[in-house]
Amino acid sequence: MKIKGKSFRTIWPEDDGASFVVIDQTRLPHRFETVPIRSGEEAARAILTMQVRGAPLIGATAAHGLALALRRDASDAALAGAIDLLAKQRPTAVNLRWALEEMRRAIQDLPVGARAAAAFAKAQAIADDDVETCRLIGVHGLELIKAAAKTKPKGEPVNILTHCNAGWLACVDWGTATSPIYQAHDAGIPVHVWVDETRPRNQGASLTAFELGSHGVPHTLIVDNAGGHLMQHGKVDLCIVGTDRVAANGDVANKIGTYLKALAAHDTNVPFYVALPYSTIDWTLGSGREIPIEERSADEVLKMQGRLDDGSVVTVDIAAPGSPAANPAFDVTPARLVTGFITERGVAPADRNGLLSLYPERRESAA
Amino acid sequence: MKIKGKSFRTIWPEDDGASFVVIDQTRLPHRFETVPIRSGEEAARAILTMQVRGAPLIGATAAHGLALALRRDASDAALAGAIDLLAKQRPTAVNLRWALEEMRRAIQDLPVGARAAAAFAKAQAIADDDVETCRLIGVHGLELIKAAAKTKPKGEPVNILTHCNAGWLACVDWGTATSPIYQAHDAGIPVHVWVDETRPRNQGASLTAFELGSHGVPHTLIVDNAGGHLMQHGKVDLCIVGTDRVAANGDVANKIGTYLKALAAHDTNVPFYVALPYSTIDWTLGSGREIPIEERSADEVLKMQGRLDDGSVVTVDIAAPGSPAANPAFDVTPARLVTGFITERGVAPADRNGLLSLYPERRESAA
Repeated sequence: MKIKGKSFRTIWPEDDGASFVVIDQTRLPHRFETVPIRSGEEAARAILTMQVRGAPLIGATAAHGLALALRRDASDAALAGAIDLLAKQRPTAVNLRWALEEMRRAIQDLPVGARAAAAFAKAQAIADDDVETCRLIGVHGLELIKAAAKTKPKGEPVNILTHCNAGWLACVDWGTATSPIYQAHDAGIPVHVWVDETRPRNQGASLTAFELGSHGVPHTLIVDNAGGHLMQHGKVDLCIVGTDRVAANGDVANKIGTYLKALAAHDTNVPFYVALPYSTIDWTLGSGREIPIEERSADEVLKMQGRLDDGSVVTVDIAAPGSPAANPAFDVTPARLVTGFITERGVAPADRNGLLSLYPERRESAA
Repeated sequence: MKIKGKSFRTIWPEDDGASFVVIDQTRLPHRFETVPIRSGEEAARAILTMQVRGAPLIGATAAHGLALALRRDASDAALAGAIDLLAKQRPTAVNLRWALEEMRRAIQDLPVGARAAAAFAKAQAIADDDVETCRLIGVHGLELIKAAAKTKPKGEPVNILTHCNAGWLACVDWGTATSPIYQAHDAGIPVHVWVDETRPRNQGASLTAFELGSHGVPHTLIVDNAGGHLMQHGKVDLCIVGTDRVAANGDVANKIGTYLKALAAHDTNVPFYVALPYSTIDWTLGSGREIPIEERSADEVLKMQGRLDDGSVVTVDIAAPGSPAANPAFDVTPARLVTGFITERGVAPADRNGLLSLYPERRESAA
């Protein structure tokens, strides 16, 4: 999508053919900076430090990182080692593991000398596939926004609430939750997005507000506490969020707080959709209870980054000195609270049958 | 309650008899500072700027402010003017209006020359009454904590989640939601409090964590998004929150986000209690839909105060530049989501009959 009129992806190959470039998302919205990734270790670190984040982008970055690792050493041992290193950086999003398994399948039966080139090609294919997948999520989700627009007085925007960043910054382009929004906006359908701040890392305030603003989509930032009140008062027409992992029964792991918004949507009869690519479905898990939930540093709760008036970026302590903090990073929204899934193959109910109606080839293998 | 071992109230008369002192809550938790209040106008400003906040403390401050105003001019016109000025500073909490009406009743039939002294006495009585009322809320709420403790393995704390600050800093002493917690802690019953950060003004991180820590009560700060996840995983035994106004049908206005926690508690079978003094009940309102909800400055969402490493306190911009923000400050939790009310008269179901069982004298007048 666009920043200052220029189209960007979140990850792209450098001209040298030996590195790739990502947008450093820890600097946003205060600075727009890119960083080169030149090795599997650097890719792992970028994932761990959340210079790249978002389930699809983590997968694409891991794929590129594996290609870089194989360029140095393409032996079976190096392949296994690099996959292990990359896979363990973040526990909740399943796309990371999915992308690495895709890479392994594409590479492991090749002669060692042919592996690096094949890995680069496959990593690029994974990135391109993510772009097309997200575009198709938008095509299908757009129909939901069009339907909502028909129920509004002419000219009034469709009000969509989203949590965290499931935007193009979380993917390679388009985003998952935001893809229908960008396509509606680009098609001239008036949309307005309520952007949840998304404490503690503020991905809504830092990333979603930044990317919507950069592309020109009307939006309003709200604290995470506000969405329920807005839904009670008819100010939200639908919710669309992303996900880090969907279990085979339709339970949804996503950024902490998603469950609360789904409860409010359910209580107020606001449709609550989850947008995802096929790679986010974990067919091996019978329910969301089995999804590992990452516990992150207390400092994310206790400190905050911001800009001073002189433009410098500082980190401040915001809490009572000495208070401990806990920081679970994701929660699981039960499928019963989800109106439907929006995937690259269409929209379906959020349950086992709904998922299998979109992916009938999984009928035998689903948990 | 105690700060560094010394007992404090949130408001007290100065020795000169012509002013009173409050703790400047906009400085906490970074600085502990007190400010003198020397006129009705200064009291109004302290309420507006939230140097004092919390429904009961707003009421007590307004009462003291009215006494100061009458000291200057005790005419009928001055009385009416001062009440109008003080009443309009905050719209949602009903205690403000209640305290001013109590003052008016105590003063209006007195000769002009006797009004100021009577007003000072009445303001002090309102503050003393708030302390005793909050103490009794704790006595009744303590029984709920004792009952929860009996269901836990020996030595394991009762885990209580609270939102915003309904602590002693919101009252004159004890607090409403925190009074049962302090009394349990002081009685040697192990308690642990999950403190919601409470964006956008961070009263949880700034005030509740500060006062619990100062008094020695074990607690853990969490972002507002985390409570539902903790409830899903059995890590919350009960929720206790305060309120700014309760309608006659039991609907509860409280800090934005309370509704989301009540939904989660309801969904996970965690008891959800609201602690309040009688002065917070608005018998004139048939339902919570009629409670005015204050919309506050977008800057509260877009900026944050914090400490730099050198101890200096700065305000930083935290959001994407140019993003607009909305800031509704309260929401209304439907009575159906509230397990019960804890008041100075006991515990009762959160509905009209429950309220009337505690306050039968209101049977004729309730909306």
